[in-house]
Amino acid sequence: MANILEHINSPEDLKPLSIDELEQLCEEIRQYIIRCCADHPGHIGSSLGAVEIAVALHKVFNAPQDKIVWDVGHQAYAHKILTGRREAFMHNRELDGISGFPKMSESPYDAFGVGHASTSISAALGLAVADEKLGSPAKHVAVIGDGALTGGLAFEGLNNAGGLKADILVILNDNQISIDQSTGGLHNTLIKIATDSRYNKLKENVWSALGATRIRRSIQKLVKNIKRAFIKTTEANSFFDSLGFRYFGPIDGNDTENLVKYLTRLKDIKGPKLLHVITTKGMGYKPAEENPTVWHAPGHYDPETGETIKQDDARSRYQDVFGVTATRLARENAKIVGITPAMMSGSGLNIMYREMPDRVFDVGIAEGHAVTFSAGLAAGGMLPFCCIYSSFMQRAYDNVIHDVALQNLKVVFCLDRAGLVGEDGATHHGVFDLAAFRPVPNLAIASPRNELELSNLLYSAAEDDYPATIIRYPRGRGVGVEWENVPFAKIPLGKAELLHEDSEASVAVLSIGPLAEKCSQAIEKANARGIGVIHYDMRFLKPLDTEALDRVCSKVDAIITVEDGCKQGGLHGAIAEYVADRRPGCRIESLGVPDEFVTQGSREQLFDCCGYNTDDILEAIVSIIKK
Amino acid sequence: MANILEHINSPEDLKPLSIDELEQLCEEIRQYIIRCCADHPGHIGSSLGAVEIAVALHKVFNAPQDKIVWDVGHQAYAHKILTGRREAFMHNRELDGISGFPKMSESPYDAFGVGHASTSISAALGLAVADEKLGSPAKHVAVIGDGALTGGLAFEGLNNAGGLKADILVILNDNQISIDQSTGGLHNTLIKIATDSRYNKLKENVWSALGATRIRRSIQKLVKNIKRAFIKTTEANSFFDSLGFRYFGPIDGNDTENLVKYLTRLKDIKGPKLLHVITTKGMGYKPAEENPTVWHAPGHYDPETGETIKQDDARSRYQDVFGVTATRLARENAKIVGITPAMMSGSGLNIMYREMPDRVFDVGIAEGHAVTFSAGLAAGGMLPFCCIYSSFMQRAYDNVIHDVALQNLKVVFCLDRAGLVGEDGATHHGVFDLAAFRPVPNLAIASPRNELELSNLLYSAAEDDYPATIIRYPRGRGVGVEWENVPFAKIPLGKAELLHEDSEASVAVLSIGPLAEKCSQAIEKANARGIGVIHYDMRFLKPLDTEALDRVCSKVDAIITVEDGCKQGGLHGAIAEYVADRRPGCRIESLGVPDEFVTQGSREQLFDCCGYNTDDILEAIVSIIKK
Repeated sequence: MANILEHINSPEDLKPLSIDELEQLCEEIRQYIIRCCADHPGHIGSSLGAVEIAVALHKVFNAPQDKIVWDVGHQAYAHKILTGRREAFMHNRELDGISGFPKMSESPYDAFGVGHASTSISAALGLAVADEKLGSPAKHVAVIGDGALTGGLAFEGLNNAGGLKADILVILNDNQISIDQSTGGLHNTLIKIATDSRYNKLKENVWSALGATRIRRSIQKLVKNIKRAFIKTTEANSFFDSLGFRYFGPIDGNDTENLVKYLTRLKDIKGPKLLHVITTKGMGYKPAEENPTVWHAPGHYDPETGETIKQDDARSRYQDVFGVTATRLARENAKIVGITPAMMSGSGLNIMYREMPDRVFDVGIAEGHAVTFSAGLAAGGMLPFCCIYSSFMQRAYDNVIHDVALQNLKVVFCLDRAGLVGEDGATHHGVFDLAAFRPVPNLAIASPRNELELSNLLYSAAEDDYPATIIRYPRGRGVGVEWENVPFAKIPLGKAELLHEDSEASVAVLSIGPLAEKCSQAIEKANARGIGVIHYDMRFLKPLDTEALDRVCSKVDAIITVEDGCKQGGLHGAIAEYVADRRPGCRIESLGVPDEFVTQGSREQLFDCCGYNTDDILEAIVSIIKK
Repeated sequence: MANILEHINSPEDLKPLSIDELEQLCEEIRQYIIRCCADHPGHIGSSLGAVEIAVALHKVFNAPQDKIVWDVGHQAYAHKILTGRREAFMHNRELDGISGFPKMSESPYDAFGVGHASTSISAALGLAVADEKLGSPAKHVAVIGDGALTGGLAFEGLNNAGGLKADILVILNDNQISIDQSTGGLHNTLIKIATDSRYNKLKENVWSALGATRIRRSIQKLVKNIKRAFIKTTEANSFFDSLGFRYFGPIDGNDTENLVKYLTRLKDIKGPKLLHVITTKGMGYKPAEENPTVWHAPGHYDPETGETIKQDDARSRYQDVFGVTATRLARENAKIVGITPAMMSGSGLNIMYREMPDRVFDVGIAEGHAVTFSAGLAAGGMLPFCCIYSSFMQRAYDNVIHDVALQNLKVVFCLDRAGLVGEDGATHHGVFDLAAFRPVPNLAIASPRNELELSNLLYSAAEDDYPATIIRYPRGRGVGVEWENVPFAKIPLGKAELLHEDSEASVAVLSIGPLAEKCSQAIEKANARGIGVIHYDMRFLKPLDTEALDRVCSKVDAIITVEDGCKQGGLHGAIAEYVADRRPGCRIESLGVPDEFVTQGSREQLFDCCGYNTDDILEAIVSIIKK
C-alpha cells in the first residue's frame, strides 16, 4: 500500500479514506511519532495511545468548525501531525519549532490551548455555549484522560455541562488500567468497568482478529452489535448520569472502525454525553507498552531497540536530592509524610515511597486537595512534605493562603520545576511562584543555589523554628557539589550568604537559586575588567535578609537582582520596596523573566531569550555602573 | 421546662440530656441565634438549618478528641454556642469578638478553620490520616452543604478518601431544595432524591407528629424503621459509591432523634460513609424559611416582626453599579455574557439576569470552572464578564494565567469585595489580588475610585483596545457621585488621573481605588498645615502610568503609595520597582495591609488597625518630609 501519511496535509485529506486505509494511517502516524520522538524527546506514551482517537475524530467531525479540545495536550501528537504540522513535528518542543501542546496561536485546529490537566470540559462547554449563542451548528468534543478526570476542575465542568444540558461530547480516554497504585475512588470504579468480563470478551475478539500485526483485519468478523459494545455498566453509568451525562461504553479506543462507528452515531445525539474508551498507553511500541511510566516522557532513545539513552552526567537531579533527603529525614522523624498530586516520580517522592509506602500519598491530579489534605495532616500533628511543580502550584494558591498560612500550619512545600523548565514551554514555566507567594503572611520562601543547599534547606525547614516553607528549585541537574554523604547543617531562617566581595566594589549582585553560579561566572569576568562586585545569594525571598541589604546599600549604589522568575514582584520587588523605603538613592536593575509568556526551547536558550544568562549578567554589571 | 441552654458550657453538658431536652435545647439555640443576629448581623439562614446537626453531633461524638469540620463555617453558629462561646456569640464578627467562622486559634472544638467552601473533606481526611498514624482512636466528621459539594475540591477530597478507604463520615447538609435555579447536574440529582415520594411520605409523618410548635412530639409514633428511613436511592448511591463512599439517607436533618440514632450507628461503621440529610434553610424562623436568599445574611432586622432594617443611605453599592452597568452594556453588545460561581446577587449580576436570563450563567461554587468556562466563551467569540469576589479569585489563579492570559483571550473580571471586607474577616479579605495578578502578562488591572469610574471602566474594558482586564472594587457603597444617568466616557488604558497638585509640592500621594477619597481628606489637612502635595489616582496597576510617575519624580523626592491591599508586590511594588530603576533617590513609603492576616471588624476599624485611614495618611505625609 502506498504511504498515506505523506499525503495528509489537513483533516480534509483523510475524510475519503476507507477504514483499512485509516488503520494503515494510524500505523504510519505511530511509526512517525516513534521516529521523531527518538531525537526530539516528548510525551510519546499518551500520544501513541491516542492515535486512533485523533484519526477517528478528524474522520467524523469537521474541524476547525467543530471544536476538539485535548485535555493536557500531551496525547495530541497525532492531531498535530494530521492538521498541517507533519513536517513541523520534526521540531516539536524546540525553540522556534512547534509547541508540545495544542496552542491556539499555532493552528486553527487547536480549538483551545492546554498544558495543565482537567481544563478541557470547561473550555469545550464555553465554546459550545458561544457557538450556540452565535448560531453556529458546530459540534464540541473534549478528550480527557482518566488521570485528568481526577482534577476537581473536570468535575466542575461535567457538573455544569450536565446542568446546562449542553450539547457536548466528552471522550474519556482511559489508559491507566495497568498502573497498580490507586489514585482515588473513581479510578477504582473505572478499573472495575474496564476489567468487566463482558468488556474483556469483546476486547479479546478484537485482538485475535487483529492478529500479530494489529493492522490487517477482517471487517466482517468484527461487525459488533452496538448493544453488546455499549455495556450498560451500573457504576460509571450512574456516576456520569448523576452529573447529567449520558454514558456510553466502554469501547476499545485503539479500534479505529469502532471509534468511527460510535462517534458517527454520537455526533447527532443531543445533550451531554460521555464515551468511555479504553486505550493502551504506548500502544504499538512494545517498550512503551511494557513500561508506561518510563515511556510517559522517556527522553532520547533508540527507536529500533527501544533503549533509552542515558545522559552521561554525574550531577544529581534536584528531584533526586529531594527524594533522598526527604527519606533520610523521614527515617529520623516519624511525623514526616510525603504528599503529591500525581508527581510521584517527577518529584522524587517515589524514593521515599519505596522505603516507606504507608507514609507517602499520591492523591491523583488534585493540587488543591493535596495542599488542603496536607493542612489537615499538619493540624493533626504530622509534618507534611507536599511536592508540587511550581506551575501546578498556581492551582493551589488559595489552599496555601486559606488552609495553611492563615492557620499558621506547618507544611513544607517542595516546588520542583521552578523557573524556566525548557521544552515544555509556556504552560509549564514556574515563573510566578516567588511573586505570588511573597505577600502571603506566615510563610518562608527559599530557593537553594545547589544540591547541598537544597538538602540543608529541607533539613532546616523541618525544624521547629521554621514556619510553613516554600522551597523552590529548578528542573534538571544541580551544579555537581557533594551533598549525599554530607552531614546536615542548619541554615538560619532568612539568612543570605555572601559569596563574593571585592574591596573596591561598585555594584552588588543579589541572586536567588542556582543562577548564583552564572552570577559567579559573570563576576569573574567583571573582575577581569577591573569592576569590583559584591555578590549575595539571598537564599530567602522571605524573610528577607535586611541586614545584608543594609550592608550592601552602605557600600554600593547599584544593585542587580537576578532571579529565575518574573521580574515583577519577586526578588526584584522585595528589594526595590525595601531599598526605596530605607535606602533611596540606590539604583536597582532586574534580571529575570520579562512581562510576557516565554516559549519552549532548551533552558540555556530561554535564559538567553529572557536576558539573564551569564553574558547578560556581565553586561548588566558593566552598564549599571555607567548610569 | 427550665432553660437548658444557659447550663451548656461545653458539649459535656449536653451528653446526659434526653431527646426531649435536646429538642428543647435546639429551640432555645434557635431563639438565641435569632435574637443575637438581629443586632449583630451574620449568616443566620444556614446556621438555623443546622442547629439539630450541631446538637446531635455533640451528643454522639466526643469533641474535641473527635474532630468535626464545618464546611464554609457559616452553618456553625450552634456549634460555637455549644462549645463555650455562648456569651461570646453576642460579639460575633466584631472587632475583638469571635470570628463568624470556626477558627482553630479560637477554640479546640474548631478542628479546622474554614471560610471558603469545599475544604472540609480534604481537611477531615488529613486529620483522620494523622490520627491513624499517631494511633488515636478519634472519629472524623465533615459537614458539607450541597452548594459547597459543587466545588471541585470537595470532589477531589471524596475521591481521595474513597480511594484510601479512610474512616471518615461526611454529612451532606442539603438545604437547597427550595432554590429553583439549577446549579449543576449533581444538584438536579439531589433534588430528585429529596423530592422522592418515599422520602416525602416519611417527612410528612414527622411534621404531622411534630405539630404546630415543632417541639412537642410523641416518640412512640416516630420510631421509624431504619430500613425505611435509609432509602437506597440509586442515583446518589451510585454517585457516592463510585467514589468509594457508602451512601446513607436521605433523612430529615432537622429531626434530632433520628439524627442521634443514625449518627450513633454510623459512628462505628468503618470506611468512608456519607449521610445525606435534608434541612430547611432558616428553619424555625418564618421570614427566613420563606425567603432563604435574603435571609442568608440579612443584615440588621427586628426579631419580632422579621422586618429587615434598611440602611438609610443614598449612595449606591458597587455591586449595583456593576449590575446596572453590565446590563446597559449587554443591551448594546450581544456578545456580552455574565458568569459567576454562586455570587449572583452578591455580585449584582442578578440585575442582568432579570433582564436577560439566557445570557447569565451561575455555575455554582466552582471558581476555577467559572474562569476556564469564560475563557472558552471568549475563544468562541463572546465577551464574558466574570464576577468573582477577590478572595475567592485566589482559587482561579491558575485558570486566569493558563486559560485566559496565556492565550490572550478577552475576559473582563469583576472582582467585588476587594480589599478589607469587614465583618467576614481574615478568610474573606481580598488583599492579595493586586500583588498576585500584577506579574501575569496580557492582563490589565484597574481599580475605580468611585461609582462613575467603575461604570466607565466597565464600558472601557469592553472596548477592543483593552486586553483581559481585572477590575477590583470594594464591598459596600461608593462615595455618592452621580453615575447612573451619565453617558459613558472612555478611560484611556493605563492612564492615571491627577486629582490634586500644589505648586510647591514636597510629597506625592499615589493611590488606587476608593481610598482616593481618604487621601483627599488627608491632603486637605496637610495643606492646612502648609504642606504641598501632588495626588494621582493611579487607576491602573497595570499598565502603569510611567509618564505620570516620571512627572512625579521630577517634582518631589517622597512618594506615599496607598492601596487597600497587601503592602508587598501590588501598587507599592510596582512603583518601587519603577522608581528604583529609573528615578533612584525618591523615597517611597507604603500604606496598605501589613504582612499579617487581618481580623474581623468594621471596615473603618480595620483601616485603623492596618494604618491607612485618613489620619494615617496625613501622618505619613507629615513624617516623610522630615526624613
